[in-house]
Amino acid sequence: MHLGAMLYPTGYHVAAWRDPAVPPRAGIDFAHLSALARVAEQGKFDFVFLADSLAVRGRDLPALSRTAIRYIGQFDPLTLLSALAVATDRIGLVGSASTTYNEPYHLARKLASIDHISGGRAGWNLVTSQNEDEAFNFGLDAHPPHAERYLRAAEFTEVLTGLWNSWEDDAFVNDKASGQFFDPDKVHVLNHRGAHFSVRGPLNVPRPPQGYPVLVQSGSSDAGKDLAARMAEVVFTAQPTLEEAQAFYADVKARVARAGRDPSQVKVLVGAFPYVGRTREDAEALRARLNALIDPVVAYSLLATQLGSDVSGYPLDGPVPQDLPETNLGKSRRALLLEMARRERMSIRQLCEFVAASRGHWTLCGGPTEIADDMQAWVAAGAADGFIVMPPTLPEGLTAFVEHVIPELQRRGAFRREYAGTTLREHFGLPRPAHPAAIARDEAR
Amino acid sequence: MHLGAMLYPTGYHVAAWRDPAVPPRAGIDFAHLSALARVAEQGKFDFVFLADSLAVRGRDLPALSRTAIRYIGQFDPLTLLSALAVATDRIGLVGSASTTYNEPYHLARKLASIDHISGGRAGWNLVTSQNEDEAFNFGLDAHPPHAERYLRAAEFTEVLTGLWNSWEDDAFVNDKASGQFFDPDKVHVLNHRGAHFSVRGPLNVPRPPQGYPVLVQSGSSDAGKDLAARMAEVVFTAQPTLEEAQAFYADVKARVARAGRDPSQVKVLVGAFPYVGRTREDAEALRARLNALIDPVVAYSLLATQLGSDVSGYPLDGPVPQDLPETNLGKSRRALLLEMARRERMSIRQLCEFVAASRGHWTLCGGPTEIADDMQAWVAAGAADGFIVMPPTLPEGLTAFVEHVIPELQRRGAFRREYAGTTLREHFGLPRPAHPAAIARDEAR
Repeated sequence: MHLGAMLYPTGYHVAAWRDPAVPPRAGIDFAHLSALARVAEQGKFDFVFLADSLAVRGRDLPALSRTAIRYIGQFDPLTLLSALAVATDRIGLVGSASTTYNEPYHLARKLASIDHISGGRAGWNLVTSQNEDEAFNFGLDAHPPHAERYLRAAEFTEVLTGLWNSWEDDAFVNDKASGQFFDPDKVHVLNHRGAHFSVRGPLNVPRPPQGYPVLVQSGSSDAGKDLAARMAEVVFTAQPTLEEAQAFYADVKARVARAGRDPSQVKVLVGAFPYVGRTREDAEALRARLNALIDPVVAYSLLATQLGSDVSGYPLDGPVPQDLPETNLGKSRRALLLEMARRERMSIRQLCEFVAASRGHWTLCGGPTEIADDMQAWVAAGAADGFIVMPPTLPEGLTAFVEHVIPELQRRGAFRREYAGTTLREHFGLPRPAHPAAIARDEAR
Repeated sequence: MHLGAMLYPTGYHVAAWRDPAVPPRAGIDFAHLSALARVAEQGKFDFVFLADSLAVRGRDLPALSRTAIRYIGQFDPLTLLSALAVATDRIGLVGSASTTYNEPYHLARKLASIDHISGGRAGWNLVTSQNEDEAFNFGLDAHPPHAERYLRAAEFTEVLTGLWNSWEDDAFVNDKASGQFFDPDKVHVLNHRGAHFSVRGPLNVPRPPQGYPVLVQSGSSDAGKDLAARMAEVVFTAQPTLEEAQAFYADVKARVARAGRDPSQVKVLVGAFPYVGRTREDAEALRARLNALIDPVVAYSLLATQLGSDVSGYPLDGPVPQDLPETNLGKSRRALLLEMARRERMSIRQLCEFVAASRGHWTLCGGPTEIADDMQAWVAAGAADGFIVMPPTLPEGLTAFVEHVIPELQRRGAFRREYAGTTLREHFGLPRPAHPAAIARDEAR
């Protein structure tokens, strides 16, 4: 089982920032964030994970001003990961960076730099920007269409792997006596010219220790799954139920096989949002306590985003109206939520809590045994190769998981007791990609 | 006197990498680089300085493969600065980042993040890209013209200061009881629309601890000096002689005054390339030893770049030919070099050494007393407010400076014995910029 720890600064619960134990300026509190990374490392997590947005998400100022989850005040992930590389020794360092509003040369350099600084612990979550607010910060008046963003993401990733191969692993001979700094036969100028990018190269950073950083993909649309099948080594997905997760898992692994790759070399990690208590009652009490902190203004606003309709005119404890006007925003998500609300006879408050608390991720709630049972069951049932754990609050949610759930998983032999390797690829059991020129030479022999 | 330490990984001498004491993979050796930053901090330097290039500089592969100074294999400066923030406590952290091939929103975030992570120690050297090789890595077939690059740089800097003012200092009220995370009256959406950029904002990082990172400018053309006069707080320049430095200093300070700013609030720092020995003889021996390591292929190639003409057909120990064909590349630099070679009757070898060793920076050579004398003399003569020290080799060049020259300067009362403040602004004695909205409110009272 592979585990990542999501370090959303306050914790992932929508009202986490209001919890008294969450530091007041969590998003820019480096002491808080580096302590979290070290706790995750003590728990032998494969990696910490930083999500991102290139804009404050949303423009509903009254609702925004009452929440800390809309990427309002926190660090750029790659800048933070570089600092965390110094604060940790073994844990992997994975961050999101948009392929929609970045230049490949910059990102190739920064990720290669982090991989060198950390001794081979970097991973890149290659995302396409989801929200229009980002477009306005990068000179555009509108967000590019979904299909276009995925075409760009694929080309972007090709350019990055190409740039990371600018230098063979042994290109820098550093012969002080003869004055030969590098072997000119072992530099490869990319000369990429494609539909979206024209990048000559070479990259001015030597080949990363891992060959290239571990490639993570986290869009769950058809285009996202196809991109993952061709290029990703880790897939991160939100799947609220076992059945949905099993279907997703089977679908991704089949696409990987169809793309001519080994399905065991693409790890599917499901987001897991765990309320951990010493007992089930403890965990339920924690959930109730946090949900009681949810601000109705914030919950209504999040629900409006997900449904594409404002339901603030309806009573909070009444049923979810099924006859909302049609929209073209987030249609499949909307249908899913309305169907679930109907099936489970949810009130607006309950749907708000569902949407707001975990934002659609698998929610676990219980004592260590139950949490470990559930996680093992999902892996055994072919729903996941592991999880990205999204603690409801930080640091307490992570500390509880590391102190109680990890030892339980270790006792069962389901999770490592010690790191076997030093790189993120080694944590995942993923091979280090050989340089194409070295492969070609081997084949010629 | 203000001092910066340039951390060009091998040291700044063109042949530094061949010195036995320089680590073989200096450019990607984080242990080496973080140790250097700590040595500079022990020496109470105001800041460390990282130069940058967004490409390997040059395409002359035989010459390139014999040198480590063409930005061939080293880290992205901002990524490195973030890691150095964790490895140090008090020293300022200044890095170059191009205004020509960056998006302002990205840079504003990253610099604000470093300023937060370091507790207010960030500085930004706002450069325009100088070499065409960079254009080819960012989708262009040609480098934008000089004037255009400076117009873009000015607008870029305005956008950054605007984005850093997205939030007032006390915008995040973090009232857990009432649920008010920030005060909606204290967020300011930039809505910038200019000739080069359209950026809505707000930035998703709170206002930096320093208000904004210290703004450094290092182009010495008229356009560069004008930009500095309007916006910079520190100017970094290469001035090989006292007379040139005095003229430059007077010119910049006059431009600052004409722009309506206080000349004492813009610090002029001159690049200083010091061969430090226990005695003058030691220092001369060091210089001779390093110059003997200069590879003629590399030196000819650098000279060709600076002159815009290939002189490799002429004998190395013969005079510098004065009748080279006219070019339109680096014209003023070329005239300056030819004039100096004529005046000082330099051989091609000597001009190569001059160009290659220090690349046009003020060269000092001597024991601690002489070096300290020279530096104090320049400050007293109105040539500089301080220096960016560019050690010929690292770590030895920096260690020698910190062990021998710094104590001499301290003994004379010319340099701090201890940091008085915690931020880079405090090291410089520069004010923290108040938020425009706070100024407006004060004025309204």
